[in-house]
Amino acid sequence: MTTLFQPDLLFTGGHFQAGAGLLVDAGGTIAGIKNAAQATVLAADTQIVRLPGKALLPGFVNVHSHAFQRLIRGRTEARRSGGHDFWSWRGEMYHAAASLTPEEMYRVARMAFLEMALAGTTTVGEFHYVHRLPDGQPYPDPNLLAHQVIAAAQSVGIRIALLRAAYQRAGYELPPDPGQTRFLETTEEFLTNVDALHRQYHSTEAWVGVAPHSVRAVPIEAVREITAWAHEHRLPVHMHVSEQVAEVEACQREYGVTPVRLLAQHRVLSERFTAVHAIHIDQEEMDMLAASRATICSCPTTERNLGDGIFPAREVMDRGISIAFGSDSQAQIEPLEDARELEYHLRLQRQQRSLLDGIDGQELSLRLFRCATANGAAALGCATGELEAGKQADFFTVDLDDVSIAGNSDEDLLPAIVFGMNRSAIADVAIGGKFLVRDHRHPQQQEILKEYQEVARKVWHAPQLAAK
Amino acid sequence: MTTLFQPDLLFTGGHFQAGAGLLVDAGGTIAGIKNAAQATVLAADTQIVRLPGKALLPGFVNVHSHAFQRLIRGRTEARRSGGHDFWSWRGEMYHAAASLTPEEMYRVARMAFLEMALAGTTTVGEFHYVHRLPDGQPYPDPNLLAHQVIAAAQSVGIRIALLRAAYQRAGYELPPDPGQTRFLETTEEFLTNVDALHRQYHSTEAWVGVAPHSVRAVPIEAVREITAWAHEHRLPVHMHVSEQVAEVEACQREYGVTPVRLLAQHRVLSERFTAVHAIHIDQEEMDMLAASRATICSCPTTERNLGDGIFPAREVMDRGISIAFGSDSQAQIEPLEDARELEYHLRLQRQQRSLLDGIDGQELSLRLFRCATANGAAALGCATGELEAGKQADFFTVDLDDVSIAGNSDEDLLPAIVFGMNRSAIADVAIGGKFLVRDHRHPQQQEILKEYQEVARKVWHAPQLAAK
Repeated sequence: MTTLFQPDLLFTGGHFQAGAGLLVDAGGTIAGIKNAAQATVLAADTQIVRLPGKALLPGFVNVHSHAFQRLIRGRTEARRSGGHDFWSWRGEMYHAAASLTPEEMYRVARMAFLEMALAGTTTVGEFHYVHRLPDGQPYPDPNLLAHQVIAAAQSVGIRIALLRAAYQRAGYELPPDPGQTRFLETTEEFLTNVDALHRQYHSTEAWVGVAPHSVRAVPIEAVREITAWAHEHRLPVHMHVSEQVAEVEACQREYGVTPVRLLAQHRVLSERFTAVHAIHIDQEEMDMLAASRATICSCPTTERNLGDGIFPAREVMDRGISIAFGSDSQAQIEPLEDARELEYHLRLQRQQRSLLDGIDGQELSLRLFRCATANGAAALGCATGELEAGKQADFFTVDLDDVSIAGNSDEDLLPAIVFGMNRSAIADVAIGGKFLVRDHRHPQQQEILKEYQEVARKVWHAPQLAAK
Repeated sequence: MTTLFQPDLLFTGGHFQAGAGLLVDAGGTIAGIKNAAQATVLAADTQIVRLPGKALLPGFVNVHSHAFQRLIRGRTEARRSGGHDFWSWRGEMYHAAASLTPEEMYRVARMAFLEMALAGTTTVGEFHYVHRLPDGQPYPDPNLLAHQVIAAAQSVGIRIALLRAAYQRAGYELPPDPGQTRFLETTEEFLTNVDALHRQYHSTEAWVGVAPHSVRAVPIEAVREITAWAHEHRLPVHMHVSEQVAEVEACQREYGVTPVRLLAQHRVLSERFTAVHAIHIDQEEMDMLAASRATICSCPTTERNLGDGIFPAREVMDRGISIAFGSDSQAQIEPLEDARELEYHLRLQRQQRSLLDGIDGQELSLRLFRCATANGAAALGCATGELEAGKQADFFTVDLDDVSIAGNSDEDLLPAIVFGMNRSAIADVAIGGKFLVRDHRHPQQQEILKEYQEVARKVWHAPQLAAK
């Protein structure tokens, strides 16, 4: 049976259309956009879902998530508990990673994905690097924790690209770090495990990509080998690239070049490649990323929290590089905050306005909204992020009378949403035309919260308990 | 009759107390904090209001608001509509100011104040500078628009300090600007009008302060005269100071010194003085503000929107200067975003973390929360912003199982709120112990939205209609 969703306003083709309906087939794919006249001559078995007072938009795609880091929200801001820079913050984060059992990993991931769903996110790229038991031994199934995270996304109802991370060392000339014991695998182990995972998950609901963690944590030969496997299977390749100055400097000491140059030299860059962060890159590195048609995933809410620095979005966009967003550390899960910060951090730096407006003739808010939706879908290799025939019917609705956006007309609703909307406006969220959030509520919300709270209590108030 | 509010957690004395109750007398003043044992022996006529699953915190104080600018939210972000810098943005803002009738001013202000209330704000400082008819003539009552704004706050139910602004010129050696026609008054007119307004409003619900707009818009002799009047009546004095570099340079051309130096030389600074923005100030100017015990009102969500620059919060706090927050242009009305951005913008600039932590031994999130509450109350001259005996019982509650903060314990709830809470968590808001928002709803919400939408439609879609 097909379904026609009829909101007051439908966001399609780059603008809001009044009176248009979204026709979704039985498989959850968009069959077409119907105007009011067309809607009257639909097949008799078409179900009509009216959404009065609402605008309907494509769901957000969160390209870079570490779900378990939801546990450290609010716990690393003072110096006593997270310290003065990225590297001391990382110690706190490792503490959270060290103690989680598989069941707890599931519970924490569910909590993060629930919040994403309530924020209008319909697809997540989970950059997953906790693989082993706390003592460094593999689980009987070495993909156990990946299964847990995928199960968490499926129980909440959002799509997931499990970007299985390779992690081999603390860094160039650095001794092993006990905080990383659960992450480590050899290239051979990694390829065996990711191959098994890919055989199991290759649907539009859950699929696999590879994520050599960074040039710090994975020697370049291994990055090449892993990338070759991914290309063979036409899967996405994601890497942390140039988030911190120290990591760029270490790469220069080891290889004599900066990270993007190294990746370009070794032909790791491609249109399936996503560089996460890419803050400390120079003009020539931007040219290399542009030439390869790679995506950059920017994570502004995390990058401001970690003090990573300001992403050079203007120069990157000028070269036509596609930018997507990730909630990364889960300091906040606010896709629109990420979108507006891409522009706002430049305004603070340069004391001008509208710095990302008009590039390639694109209006600013439309550009930022596409970064949060269609560009993310491309980076994860899935057919979502736009409301057009053939794409998956993944969307959210907003209450047009929410106090943060009320009073705007069709023409200026998008900038109001991108620059001013609060999450409180997001009413319904659907994947493949099926609602998982309705009237601001997810049916499993109370259970997910309760189970998460139990984990948080254990991790933070009985840290001596080892993971089982 | 007294009332005891019993949440799960009460924020008082700088931390959350479990089981404590807030005792409020019949006049809306806090009579004391009662623990569970004390609560059992209350007078028989004490009403008990249980707030299970909630934490109760002092309401936010919004020190710097231009309510009518709510109209331009989302309409000035692209170059075609707000342009490339602060000054071209200002043109769009003047367009909104030019066309409003008194009734419309009331409706737009109500909308802004409703959003503040829903965000947990219980007191606003309204820096009000639209006084005249569009043709520059005074209204029969020259305080008519001020009355409208005060009435709007009272209809929503929040406290208001009407900071009546003086505005005399476009700037040093600048010709008159038609966009400013409605703002202009001579010093004599201003003093007559503000005196009349003060006679009418001097309660804890609505009171008056003065606001010489800026050294750009008000010659220093007039600033002195207005300040003298305010000191005589022990009222707050607020001014825009050094928001933009161009304004600092114009001051240097006119007076040979920067704005804060000029204000110090003329003894305008005092503990009743609030400098709004103060972004482009040097070390010596900070010393002058510190010596005078003035407050600085920072408006980070607006300052990032306008490209004003990054406020030097660390150097300012190191000197013990009190910082408060304002929603200013209403680009967003998110007191906690302002709070976290004070720290976050420094992190982006310096690539470190926790930059405002530990100053004077104060933990970061407590410091930022105080900026958003108690410091604001001091800047507006009112007894609110803290839950302690003798203060007004102005507070909001948060749902402890909101997805943005769930899982935190008493000890780390405040950083979770300051750094991660979404507005969706704010459930109830009370002024003087009376709820104006209950379970996320304000009783007049639909009416306020509808009336606002009518104004927005007129202003943006029939701009040729002059104000009546």
